[in-house]
Amino acid sequence: MKVTLERNHLLKSLSHVHRVVERRNTYPILANVLLKASEDRLELRATDLDIEVTESVPAMVSTPGTTTVPAHTLYEIVRKLSDGAEVRLDTEGGEQMLLTSGRSRFHLACLTPDSFPDLKSGNFAHTFSIPVGELRELIERTQFAISNEETRYYLNGIFFHAIESSRDGMVLRAVATDGHRLARADTDAPEGSAGMPGIIVPKKTVGEVQKLLDSAEGEVAVEVSETKIRFTLGPVVLLSKLIEGTFPDYERVTPKNNDKRMSVDRQSFATAVDRVSTIASDRGGKAVKLSAHSGQLELSVTNPDHGTASEELAVEFETDGFEIGFNARYLLDIIAQIRSDEAEFMFNDAGSPTLVQDTGETRALYVLMPMRV
Amino acid sequence: MKVTLERNHLLKSLSHVHRVVERRNTYPILANVLLKASEDRLELRATDLDIEVTESVPAMVSTPGTTTVPAHTLYEIVRKLSDGAEVRLDTEGGEQMLLTSGRSRFHLACLTPDSFPDLKSGNFAHTFSIPVGELRELIERTQFAISNEETRYYLNGIFFHAIESSRDGMVLRAVATDGHRLARADTDAPEGSAGMPGIIVPKKTVGEVQKLLDSAEGEVAVEVSETKIRFTLGPVVLLSKLIEGTFPDYERVTPKNNDKRMSVDRQSFATAVDRVSTIASDRGGKAVKLSAHSGQLELSVTNPDHGTASEELAVEFETDGFEIGFNARYLLDIIAQIRSDEAEFMFNDAGSPTLVQDTGETRALYVLMPMRV
Repeated sequence: MKVTLERNHLLKSLSHVHRVVERRNTYPILANVLLKASEDRLELRATDLDIEVTESVPAMVSTPGTTTVPAHTLYEIVRKLSDGAEVRLDTEGGEQMLLTSGRSRFHLACLTPDSFPDLKSGNFAHTFSIPVGELRELIERTQFAISNEETRYYLNGIFFHAIESSRDGMVLRAVATDGHRLARADTDAPEGSAGMPGIIVPKKTVGEVQKLLDSAEGEVAVEVSETKIRFTLGPVVLLSKLIEGTFPDYERVTPKNNDKRMSVDRQSFATAVDRVSTIASDRGGKAVKLSAHSGQLELSVTNPDHGTASEELAVEFETDGFEIGFNARYLLDIIAQIRSDEAEFMFNDAGSPTLVQDTGETRALYVLMPMRV
Repeated sequence: MKVTLERNHLLKSLSHVHRVVERRNTYPILANVLLKASEDRLELRATDLDIEVTESVPAMVSTPGTTTVPAHTLYEIVRKLSDGAEVRLDTEGGEQMLLTSGRSRFHLACLTPDSFPDLKSGNFAHTFSIPVGELRELIERTQFAISNEETRYYLNGIFFHAIESSRDGMVLRAVATDGHRLARADTDAPEGSAGMPGIIVPKKTVGEVQKLLDSAEGEVAVEVSETKIRFTLGPVVLLSKLIEGTFPDYERVTPKNNDKRMSVDRQSFATAVDRVSTIASDRGGKAVKLSAHSGQLELSVTNPDHGTASEELAVEFETDGFEIGFNARYLLDIIAQIRSDEAEFMFNDAGSPTLVQDTGETRALYVLMPMRV
């Protein structure tokens, strides 16, 4: 393999693919990036056996060929080369790849590409394309609620499915929950997504796709099979395994009949929750109590070791004398998602899930379990 | 104690004093800040038994008194209050202090001030005052070389002493070393510093003083005794124990007869060292080899696991065929200290300490021990 290409092209592509490579690997080949030079492209590929990212960049190929070199090391080297420099890669037919650029020379240990794992894609039964902004929105609205508990592996991702919504017709819906809070966001169902099975996309994949979306434009092509999903964003292709398992029936925990409506100024509410939770301890679960009395909402925290904190806010609330407790961290996470000036809470009672939403037209909703306070 | 003051004054002062408070404490009182209201000031004090920081801020005192409350909690609360708000503190004569501001109320657990430790200052035999900029320069130039090895506790700080320099007359000199590299910086000896004993100021104290210097102007008053040092920067007073022990004879390891002079462009050299060291492993001690041949300096790194890296630079160097190795990290630390466009190296041989300096007028010098490569 003998190839010359622009450092900036190589860097951009490496920055996409090297991230999936784990820092510690049982198999040395998993630490490497596959480089494949053919015609006038260099293809880069990296995998952690669950996710595979492939991208190809323009290159002048004088000798086609394939090799693998340490991914993070190559990324660090290319990152430190001068902006706009030219990079030459030459396997010299042997066990090392020579990288030269300007007056820098690097010999990198290669591993034979024969043993480089291939995450076979199989056949994709469902294919659709979705605007970058809409996919980003579905992820941003729900990602924070993904569970990290390994024992409930089926909650370690975002559940995507196409469903008939009573208000909006067919939608593509994203749902994430950790059992304490639930986030749900809808977008118009893209053509081809109807009839697709419900799939759970793992947290790491979600994070990688999100980073790729940051520099993407236009549409993302999405292909789904029973066990895998493939995202194509311009020159970048990300193939990922899905989480095998059954996502819980989130409709069952989404309250339908919460009739106690409270409207608060989002910013003042967030500031006040943050302030009173200063004295909350992890031991007490960081519980904050909300008590509503005659148009005033009192937020309060009691910590037997440190003391107490309270703050009052004006709210719109018809039910007098209502009290409920929440985890301050979860409450702040959800409030951070609200885009309208006012946040709308729908309560049932102090022991039942509470619904939180933007006011007005919204396609996202949040469910928060209360805490005993 | 009953006192009203501006949130911004209280915040600024707490940000100075709360930092010395350790996150975990054997004695609960050490987690607290002492608050003392008298006349028209509130005095704040915190300590970790080695360092004590005291500051007083303007306040309206309606009932004088003294108490102690958790320092980090108070800091976090005050930080989250609105800019420009008014804060009222009231001990209510009991075991709690009530803090109110706007519609926020906090009750904080107090501990009696009787058991609050007092780092008695004793008598200071030597007193001088030094411009903020000069003290900052002495610290910045040497701090990076302080040792973290607890067994060599006498290296865990900066050694300050007044000494007759052959070139500059009486100077106040700062020296730090970890046995691998040494940094030395001089400034004109302030009046009153001559005859002061050599003192070792602990690393944590150095860091705290440095942060205080960032927002200080004018002069710093410094008072020194056999066992303590006191810095006064406007309203802030920092009293610290000194490290008891003997600082090694740094003159002995500072080379006098290194006659092989090399001059390199600082920026290109730093970039090249950073680049080739990408493939260095911790296992190999991150050694970079410098080889000089006919006006060219080759920097190279060999890592048996990853490969090799090399880069060439144009240098001014009279000795041909000279080779020496250094720890890449230490080399970069020292180059980062060089302020002139060119860095000047003075070598003896591959086994002896190397001198690094700015070109031209300079009052700092660096010594770097070589590595076998």
